[in-house]
Amino acid sequence: MAIQKSDPDYVTALVRGLSVIRCFDKGFESLTLSEVAARSGLTRGTARRFLLTLEAIGYVSQNDRTFRLSPKVLDLGYAYLASVPLWEQAQPLMKEIVDQIDESCSLAVLNGTDVVYLARVPPRHLHTLPVHVGTRMPAYVNSMGRVLLAELEDADLDEYFRHAELRKLNRYTVTSETVLRRILHDIRKNGYSMLEHELHEGRRSMAVPIRNRDSVAVASINVSALMSRATKKEFVDRFLPLLKNAAFLIGKAI
Amino acid sequence: MAIQKSDPDYVTALVRGLSVIRCFDKGFESLTLSEVAARSGLTRGTARRFLLTLEAIGYVSQNDRTFRLSPKVLDLGYAYLASVPLWEQAQPLMKEIVDQIDESCSLAVLNGTDVVYLARVPPRHLHTLPVHVGTRMPAYVNSMGRVLLAELEDADLDEYFRHAELRKLNRYTVTSETVLRRILHDIRKNGYSMLEHELHEGRRSMAVPIRNRDSVAVASINVSALMSRATKKEFVDRFLPLLKNAAFLIGKAI
Repeated sequence: MAIQKSDPDYVTALVRGLSVIRCFDKGFESLTLSEVAARSGLTRGTARRFLLTLEAIGYVSQNDRTFRLSPKVLDLGYAYLASVPLWEQAQPLMKEIVDQIDESCSLAVLNGTDVVYLARVPPRHLHTLPVHVGTRMPAYVNSMGRVLLAELEDADLDEYFRHAELRKLNRYTVTSETVLRRILHDIRKNGYSMLEHELHEGRRSMAVPIRNRDSVAVASINVSALMSRATKKEFVDRFLPLLKNAAFLIGKAI
Repeated sequence: MAIQKSDPDYVTALVRGLSVIRCFDKGFESLTLSEVAARSGLTRGTARRFLLTLEAIGYVSQNDRTFRLSPKVLDLGYAYLASVPLWEQAQPLMKEIVDQIDESCSLAVLNGTDVVYLARVPPRHLHTLPVHVGTRMPAYVNSMGRVLLAELEDADLDEYFRHAELRKLNRYTVTSETVLRRILHDIRKNGYSMLEHELHEGRRSMAVPIRNRDSVAVASINVSALMSRATKKEFVDRFLPLLKNAAFLIGKAI
């Protein structure tokens, strides 16, 4: 059971400092002190102390009156990637799949109500999505997410639906809890998920679970392609055996 | 001028919290409280407060008596990647190079005495290095690092040599400051660097700078290949024009 904000052990300064790092984002690369304060909800004085501290240890750089993150910040996320042996085992096997089918192959884990991409091998052609390591997507509308949701215990799945925000990304996105539960049930039975249109119109993806030695699904691996480039039959006949084989080998290796 | 540790504005709790995150690394995926305390140099009590706080906000998960990082940590490094427009502009251009030559192409920036990889497109074959986004390498023994060092003002280069730890990675690694300065001078003159054997025996790499609109080298792009797969002549005749063209287009786009 995690501690609460009110717990005397809760280090507010750390939480605030991490929120300052997360202020910087796409479209907000370079921020003034006032902007950081506004985005983090801190006073100017507090935001300033955090920025100066982050600058002192090399995570932020200052130029005139604006601050930006420095590449050292990658060390933090990298500590996670470096600590996950899965990643390195998976990469060559994913590359083999992409070599054979020239469509993108990704690996993700569940984190809260999202999947987080841990590895990705893009195809040679350019019809691909701007997904990279660290990208998050809502689990209910992602082939890998659905595979991992399908594996949850009943209580955990109830918990998921209590917190998930089911939004329509386009007219195809399924957002009904009842329908999603039925889909997850079928995925569990079939051993794979297939997603069409729901995330991006005209795109199809298929995912299978990666199970550890105790048969627990710890991650999921998928292939994603434009529907105009690969038929449903191709996904089932050609891509599925490749995915299952890679998932088996990765699972054995971890 | 950055603040010092002794400055009243220095938020020690933030610095300590980040050091707790960085305790977890390859080979140290799962740590007990005592191990975190030992690796971070904090008392058990302090380390415990930070771990519980990180757990409360989802950056660390606890299982029995061991802690590990959770994928949410990637959000921190990802904030940096998402905030660098360079990255997305470069990826398709790098992919084009790899499609043509089937050798790996990387993009890196200088950070302290290291280069940090921001993007990487692996070749289809498996003779490649385990390098990914966030990987650090000493600048003096990396083709991209040398290009970026060659661009430094005299005072900054002096500063670099005051801090850099020049170590032999194998019998070929150049570690003499005098020789390195001469090499950097030539790189500046030639507009590219070529590294052979020094980082990995039997491997050759070539890098060129990526210049922004003000002609400042903000990053560097390289190709790396086993020497048995690509001759020096091939690097100069075939790879160099591709690198220069990509660097020009990326530089124009940022």
